[in-house]
Amino acid sequence: MPVNPHGASTPSHDTDLPQQEASTEKQNRETAAGSAQRDRVHLRRTTQLPFTNAHGSYLLDVPFTEIPLTAVPGATPYEPFVDYCTEGPAHPTDIGLPPLRAQWIADRHDTQEYASETADPGVDKARSGQRRGADRGWRGQQRHPRRASSGACPTQRRYARQGIVTPEMAFAAEREHCSAQLVRDELAAGRAVIPLNINHPEAEPMIIGERFLVKINANLGNSQVSSSIGEEVEKLSWATKWGADTVMDLSTGDDIHTTREWILRNSPVPIGTVPLYQALEEVGQDASELSWELFRDTVVEQCEQGVDYMTIHAGVRLGHVPLTADRLTGIVSRGGSIMASWCLAHHEENFLYTHFDELCEILHNYDVCFSLGDGLRPGCLADANDQAQFAELLTLAELTEKAWAHDCQVMIEGPGHIPFDTVKANVELEKSLCKGAPFYTLGPLAMDAAPGYDHITSAIGATEAARYGTAMLCYVTPKEHLGLPNRDDVKTGVITYKIAAHAADIAKHHAGARERDDAISRARFEFRWMDQFNLSLDPDTALALHDEDQPAEPAKLAHFCAMCGPKFCAMAISQNIRDRFGDRDAQQAIVTGMSAMSILFKQSGGSVYLPAR
Amino acid sequence: MPVNPHGASTPSHDTDLPQQEASTEKQNRETAAGSAQRDRVHLRRTTQLPFTNAHGSYLLDVPFTEIPLTAVPGATPYEPFVDYCTEGPAHPTDIGLPPLRAQWIADRHDTQEYASETADPGVDKARSGQRRGADRGWRGQQRHPRRASSGACPTQRRYARQGIVTPEMAFAAEREHCSAQLVRDELAAGRAVIPLNINHPEAEPMIIGERFLVKINANLGNSQVSSSIGEEVEKLSWATKWGADTVMDLSTGDDIHTTREWILRNSPVPIGTVPLYQALEEVGQDASELSWELFRDTVVEQCEQGVDYMTIHAGVRLGHVPLTADRLTGIVSRGGSIMASWCLAHHEENFLYTHFDELCEILHNYDVCFSLGDGLRPGCLADANDQAQFAELLTLAELTEKAWAHDCQVMIEGPGHIPFDTVKANVELEKSLCKGAPFYTLGPLAMDAAPGYDHITSAIGATEAARYGTAMLCYVTPKEHLGLPNRDDVKTGVITYKIAAHAADIAKHHAGARERDDAISRARFEFRWMDQFNLSLDPDTALALHDEDQPAEPAKLAHFCAMCGPKFCAMAISQNIRDRFGDRDAQQAIVTGMSAMSILFKQSGGSVYLPAR
Repeated sequence: MPVNPHGASTPSHDTDLPQQEASTEKQNRETAAGSAQRDRVHLRRTTQLPFTNAHGSYLLDVPFTEIPLTAVPGATPYEPFVDYCTEGPAHPTDIGLPPLRAQWIADRHDTQEYASETADPGVDKARSGQRRGADRGWRGQQRHPRRASSGACPTQRRYARQGIVTPEMAFAAEREHCSAQLVRDELAAGRAVIPLNINHPEAEPMIIGERFLVKINANLGNSQVSSSIGEEVEKLSWATKWGADTVMDLSTGDDIHTTREWILRNSPVPIGTVPLYQALEEVGQDASELSWELFRDTVVEQCEQGVDYMTIHAGVRLGHVPLTADRLTGIVSRGGSIMASWCLAHHEENFLYTHFDELCEILHNYDVCFSLGDGLRPGCLADANDQAQFAELLTLAELTEKAWAHDCQVMIEGPGHIPFDTVKANVELEKSLCKGAPFYTLGPLAMDAAPGYDHITSAIGATEAARYGTAMLCYVTPKEHLGLPNRDDVKTGVITYKIAAHAADIAKHHAGARERDDAISRARFEFRWMDQFNLSLDPDTALALHDEDQPAEPAKLAHFCAMCGPKFCAMAISQNIRDRFGDRDAQQAIVTGMSAMSILFKQSGGSVYLPAR
Repeated sequence: MPVNPHGASTPSHDTDLPQQEASTEKQNRETAAGSAQRDRVHLRRTTQLPFTNAHGSYLLDVPFTEIPLTAVPGATPYEPFVDYCTEGPAHPTDIGLPPLRAQWIADRHDTQEYASETADPGVDKARSGQRRGADRGWRGQQRHPRRASSGACPTQRRYARQGIVTPEMAFAAEREHCSAQLVRDELAAGRAVIPLNINHPEAEPMIIGERFLVKINANLGNSQVSSSIGEEVEKLSWATKWGADTVMDLSTGDDIHTTREWILRNSPVPIGTVPLYQALEEVGQDASELSWELFRDTVVEQCEQGVDYMTIHAGVRLGHVPLTADRLTGIVSRGGSIMASWCLAHHEENFLYTHFDELCEILHNYDVCFSLGDGLRPGCLADANDQAQFAELLTLAELTEKAWAHDCQVMIEGPGHIPFDTVKANVELEKSLCKGAPFYTLGPLAMDAAPGYDHITSAIGATEAARYGTAMLCYVTPKEHLGLPNRDDVKTGVITYKIAAHAADIAKHHAGARERDDAISRARFEFRWMDQFNLSLDPDTALALHDEDQPAEPAKLAHFCAMCGPKFCAMAISQNIRDRFGDRDAQQAIVTGMSAMSILFKQSGGSVYLPAR
């Protein structure tokens, strides 16, 4: 039987696959990410899932995280807690991850290798060799890029619409503890995406959609003023270790190509980019010099590298730009401002809009998922829910159907900064206009006036957004509006967004979502301190905060904490109540007590406890 | 004219008072709290508000915070931003605050001084003299306690119901920029409270109710295992500096009386307590030894000291205790567990419930506000919204009407841990059952599994709760479930809850609530970095995070930040768009561009942009 954290019956897979007991390999996650985790005991394991379809037979190694629990003397030992796992297998960074999906892709016989015509594998296109920290010539596992064979469409959407369950769908379903049928049907309907470029075979399949666990994205990437390649790769591992479901590489500085190569070859999660950033670097950062041809070549280069989804700012139409004229903060999306600038400089319609069909043809050749960018998203509450924002959304809805016609997968990006009471309407509007295409919001921030705390201002909005159906939440770190996130900021952002996603999963009554909360609450009541730490989203921080007051080891066995002290603990008192009276005695106590009260009540005329008026 | 941050017309006061320009005293807030605030420029000022009613004429010094803004060369200088102020006037801690309200109280001639019969002013009742850090014999400004003259009822509720506008109401209204009429009417209806013990004349009047700004409370207090008196007083100043509207002193260790005395004499905000904690200390922490008489004496002692509101766990009835038997985490409220323990030990009804009328008579003598405690609140999601929780709420509703009959002011405490999607129902149920008595919730936490981040898990629930009418939010710090908050935790908790309260004020469309956000957004667009920092809820942190990447002073004048670098800033590009084209030219650009597009469109047959299916 498969390990099932939710105690529910084994999910049925429409391909009628028997599941077998995992032959698991324990891997202590003290990896290159290198945190001081003396007490963290999360383990990555895999369940082996046999899978067969028309293209072949495979044994899928589906990852999960196992958290061992402390045995209570005299009681039946607790089963380990089993959780979704994003951190990927341990591996040497300078070799890269194994190509998990290579055989699945090859066996479909609808793609072929070819010699790239765009990317010079030795050098970055723009100002190469200026960055620190990693071998710029490195290309990880050398492979020729693949693309669709002539006339083929190797996208998960196409397979789903053909009724095919792919290994990717079965894999994603197993992680979600749902049926592969559900995954296939939601993909076919466009209500979910599996962002997986055929040139990123290292990635472990995952699904993004309203019917599934809420996902989170972490943005990484150097800018012109800070960070090295090595730092970005370490941030990638760090982000996935704490639970990032996808990562966007938003680098804008030098060595963009090489930085992305290191990230892709080491990433177990889908990688997103904004190709416009690289394109702008290549024209010396003068937006007016951009062209469709240059952008197209950049996109192809990234498709060949293995980018899984791309933000495309095709909704910033020329006619929308004047709608931002009276805004308090204008256009705050980099991509949006670049395209608006280009439109006005050339007095022409956005080339991403005019060439959108060509873009679809490129992206479906590699199964790259569209993330239709909200370049006109509001940058403050005052600009929220205005004409510019919704004019763009209408365009994105139009482009969604166009992309679907090419069987491309599509997500829709959303705000930004909007008042808390308008979050629900934003989500429902997107779902309605874009026919259920997964919504992918940046927060949204519920207020503007707390820089330094925008992980919190946005987690509030994000929880509300996800509750009503936003499928993926783009994290916001404490550095938002102030600078680039460092390692600590990335972790804080990821954990904060795991909170938002999890609170929303619970609010949505997602099957099994509350199991982790119940497990930690049980540990809390039984004073299993180490289990409380290990079951928490961030065991290291929980332990460290506890140890500030009570660093001694015995405190972790104590039936109290520094909050109330040894004799003043509500949980201890509450347990004592049970211990002293037992359930039956307690009931008797009540009856006896109530009888006494009854007499008192009658003596007082029966009215003393009624309101005086 | 008074300073009005919202640019609205001067609010009318029903007492028809002319308002005069403030003769203000600038006080740089580099006080005893002692933070390193080289760049923080928040200033406390006061507006003088003349006030006359049947009892006397006064010039009320109503506080506000002024934030100077940077002048943009060539433009009209911005007015300073004006905000609600909780931090109180600067003063020497060892003398205490001046008795702001002493004359107002005396002039009403419905209270009188008397020699206390309960408190021995020299010694704490239990195990005195064991703590560090402050003079245990100190009593601040020596005063006899006051209480109601025979037959009088000196509560703000009573005055309001008599149609009287008190200086306290006018003062609170001025802080809220609303009419004193509204304050009076909401008080009279029980939908708001002004928690102000006549023996805490140092406090600055403030109002808690759904129609007013959402308030936040910070819990302080030593436990048996940590902290000193001096530390608690410093935490008080620290909490009010960052925006705590009330503070609860939850001390459970030694020298409770003296600790509270130092806190009360130095507190510009209402102070709440849980008298049961002290009572339990006095019986050697054996709950079964508690009695009504001992509890009553404790309450009187605290009334005489000046405690403004008290948590009373009168809703933990004997018959409710068995309802917690099947809970995952039983009773998690300290007060709740103590009273449940007492009830079961004695097989008797809760003495707080049976003596509730006597308690009302005591509290109304001092105008101490009830905070009816939710001793049976759920301690985890699994226990949320159960019979125990709502049985207690029904009892609290009954007691609310009883307290109102005595013209006592009442708040209702609420959970705790509840799923996000059930927060709204909890608030609406409380408002309905308790006839609009202000709801005062602890968070609620929207999930259980993130110890170390419960300021965030709870701020998510708190924002939702406040949006639907919760009047005051009890903060939760990162130390929740792990230990006692230190200075940093207190600040993090307060700022996080200011975020929740503010996001809710905006969501409620509270008049003027968004002014601060608009001001900071304007500063952001104009690259007024110092204004961004100073307008933020925590200028120090915003500045510090910005300086991590760009510590040099010129960076604070720069038209970019480390996020995107100098040539890649969306705001800068967006400004350039405006600068280059101007509004009229931009319009012309669009028209020209659209004409070109129109030709292209026609050439392509007019269908190229339509979805392919």
